[in-house]
Amino acid sequence: MENKEFVKDLTKMEDDFAKWYTDIVLKAELVDYAPVKGFMVIRPYGYAIWENIQKVLDAKFKELGHKNMYFPLLIPESLLNKEKEHVEGFAPEVAWVTQGGENELQERLCIRPTSETIICTMYSKWLNSYRDLPYKYNQWANVVRWEKTTRPFLRTAEFLWQEGHTIHATAQEAMEETLTMHKVYADFLKDYLAIPVIMGQKSEKEKFAGAEATYTVEAMMHDGKALQSGTSHYFGNHFAKAFDIKFQNKEGKLEYAYQTSWGMTTRVIGGLIMVHGDNRGLKLPPKIAPTQIVIVPIAQQREGVLEKTEELKRKLSTKFRVELDDRKEVSPGFKFNYWELRGVPVRVEIGPKDIENNECIVFRRDTLEKETVSLDDLESKLENLMEEIQENMYKAAQENVVNRTFVAHNFEEYKDLFSKREGFAKIMWCGDRECEDKIKEENSTTIRCIPFEEDKFQDVCSICGKKAKHMVYTARQY
Amino acid sequence: MENKEFVKDLTKMEDDFAKWYTDIVLKAELVDYAPVKGFMVIRPYGYAIWENIQKVLDAKFKELGHKNMYFPLLIPESLLNKEKEHVEGFAPEVAWVTQGGENELQERLCIRPTSETIICTMYSKWLNSYRDLPYKYNQWANVVRWEKTTRPFLRTAEFLWQEGHTIHATAQEAMEETLTMHKVYADFLKDYLAIPVIMGQKSEKEKFAGAEATYTVEAMMHDGKALQSGTSHYFGNHFAKAFDIKFQNKEGKLEYAYQTSWGMTTRVIGGLIMVHGDNRGLKLPPKIAPTQIVIVPIAQQREGVLEKTEELKRKLSTKFRVELDDRKEVSPGFKFNYWELRGVPVRVEIGPKDIENNECIVFRRDTLEKETVSLDDLESKLENLMEEIQENMYKAAQENVVNRTFVAHNFEEYKDLFSKREGFAKIMWCGDRECEDKIKEENSTTIRCIPFEEDKFQDVCSICGKKAKHMVYTARQY
Repeated sequence: MENKEFVKDLTKMEDDFAKWYTDIVLKAELVDYAPVKGFMVIRPYGYAIWENIQKVLDAKFKELGHKNMYFPLLIPESLLNKEKEHVEGFAPEVAWVTQGGENELQERLCIRPTSETIICTMYSKWLNSYRDLPYKYNQWANVVRWEKTTRPFLRTAEFLWQEGHTIHATAQEAMEETLTMHKVYADFLKDYLAIPVIMGQKSEKEKFAGAEATYTVEAMMHDGKALQSGTSHYFGNHFAKAFDIKFQNKEGKLEYAYQTSWGMTTRVIGGLIMVHGDNRGLKLPPKIAPTQIVIVPIAQQREGVLEKTEELKRKLSTKFRVELDDRKEVSPGFKFNYWELRGVPVRVEIGPKDIENNECIVFRRDTLEKETVSLDDLESKLENLMEEIQENMYKAAQENVVNRTFVAHNFEEYKDLFSKREGFAKIMWCGDRECEDKIKEENSTTIRCIPFEEDKFQDVCSICGKKAKHMVYTARQY
Repeated sequence: MENKEFVKDLTKMEDDFAKWYTDIVLKAELVDYAPVKGFMVIRPYGYAIWENIQKVLDAKFKELGHKNMYFPLLIPESLLNKEKEHVEGFAPEVAWVTQGGENELQERLCIRPTSETIICTMYSKWLNSYRDLPYKYNQWANVVRWEKTTRPFLRTAEFLWQEGHTIHATAQEAMEETLTMHKVYADFLKDYLAIPVIMGQKSEKEKFAGAEATYTVEAMMHDGKALQSGTSHYFGNHFAKAFDIKFQNKEGKLEYAYQTSWGMTTRVIGGLIMVHGDNRGLKLPPKIAPTQIVIVPIAQQREGVLEKTEELKRKLSTKFRVELDDRKEVSPGFKFNYWELRGVPVRVEIGPKDIENNECIVFRRDTLEKETVSLDDLESKLENLMEEIQENMYKAAQENVVNRTFVAHNFEEYKDLFSKREGFAKIMWCGDRECEDKIKEENSTTIRCIPFEEDKFQDVCSICGKKAKHMVYTARQY
């Protein structure tokens, strides 16, 4: 009874995907709405996911020789204005500080929407010789972008992220760094979040304001829409010229440095939810789940049950992230729903009968299957299960991508496609902005990326019929 | 030659302690001044110290059952205004956001100077039953306080910190939490930063705006001035009443919750520098040093030297945080100074002769002593040395505290003392604000804390001669 009501609370994803999403983020206590419009509070369970993401990424960055730093939150307007394309892209969506303490400021300061301008200013001051290069630095920080329409994790006025900022002696090195980090993001999504991605380059229209080239990892949500999940930018020496970042090369001559930046944000948590979740709630891949195993005692008032579950928790905790739910005031059924909603990959149930038989029941969240397992084999069973679930979740997500990826040979086909369904539509593209604008105006779709592997299926642009340059992925986006 | 110039660059601490401090933070590349007045850039070496501090504290918080969350950066003015004492304390020093994107905001938003008001708002919304309590949450964040006079780490317009915010069912539990965290800070300073502290309570005048009681750990810098290094606040149900944080108790009645908050900031890095540093630069305790051992090859162009140092680095890296400085363009002497300035606890020098003899030279930064060590014994020698240095640094700091702690029996003695030297002066205090104001006006000293162990040395107030209530520590402060 309690049980059913709990599930009834959750909007079904096929009825209203957006409402389903909001239900989950709130009911699984990942976030809450803040008293300021567009801002979110990240609650402990949501933040624990972010901490796991940070841990993996940070270790990877360091392994590749990056170090962390911290730059100021506030950026003077004059600095933001230094790079023309950059300011045009960001100025309309920044928050302005105009008063400090009791005084009106002489120059207004924006809260960083991203930190290129302030970081470039310091790099310009620090850099002397080719010997100092490369600078491979990263920062974990909060940024603010004054968005009009917001949704928890996906688009919020403030979000958390990491922003890597590197400078190099040559264009080639900088491009290599850009592509290395592009791959780091793709691998992270695949290997840890169990999210398949399309890797590729953004079109001129969609690239980062001020970049020469932007690379993106694009993920498909369960409903077929795209989520841009991590971007890496190659700047050439564009910002270096605007900010005067120069070094003495081996021959003693002054040269401009080549630059990159790359970022991943709390938005990927939104992706995690929308790729894997179902009508029972969240579904978390074991590698990133704050709790990998929850132990639920059955008939816990009976002698020996709690002792056994506590013993089990101690034992399993040496290898896994484990919770024991020994609350007295709620039933096992309530607990099942509670932890399924929170996406915990595995549940272990154990009651007096099981203890007698030296066994327990193991439930996996991804397939909803139950199995009886001998307590002697439990640890090795669980180890295998973690891998199996991780792989199986990736496969399920990959299947969705395959099922929802289409080819459009001409604009009629294209419009027909997006009038009926969501998904990735591959099109051949002439490269003109006109065709890019046209698909957006008439279908609200955008070019997600020009993939590295261009599977060219015809010679003419699917939109205008002129000669095609690229095969591109298009979709509606979050 | 190179060598000497390098050291000459550094102001001597006995000549100008403030200048010495600034020299160190800049030359050791811990921070740099940002393009916005009062803000700092934390450079990789400085940030690596902060990361080590975070790692230790965060693990301790979690061990004690705290979880991390993240609350919004911006707080509406109306929320800040809800608790009278709090707003009076903080409103004069906040930065105000008045414009978001292209629009004037209807209500101005302050950048959090601390997060009580926004956290209380959410706690009020979330809390239902005594079963939900305690809430033991923490956040790692940046805060902004519009300070007029700033110095890197010690007082900056923006700083990084952690702020713990807990609520409890009873006053006793909340008080226990406050004191537990007070002890966590004291132990952390002692055990990791090798900084001895005085633990105690702040006076009414010096306590946190809105708190019922503030506990502080006070450290003495090398020059005898005090640095408040971590505070824990007990709020009673003061904020709970202002923000309506209520829960249903076991009897089904509504009650206000009891609350605490506690914080430690990047300021302790300033303490680390000013407690341990000397005229060669920083001196870092091994437990917190980003690099514990630097290996400097001697005559590195000679055959076999670099191979040997690389082998050594690989070997030692399994147990220690090790750097190998194999730069070709600078001399060993330059490297010695470079790493001494950065406070690396141990240097290992090894050249062709040493390799022949299967030995190396081990230099310790705390005592500046050199010793020849057999390569066979090196690992165990270094393990012992790390502990020895950590202890020795604590002892040296403790000695400074003992040497610079005085007793003042009357106001003449007190004034005489602070006209000649810096240090902690213990006084007996009647408890009146008047005497507290008087010492500040005439000596620029403040009551640092009322220690738990009140070593009462006379019955009358050292300032006014009336009946004394407490023995207190006073000092000039950073």
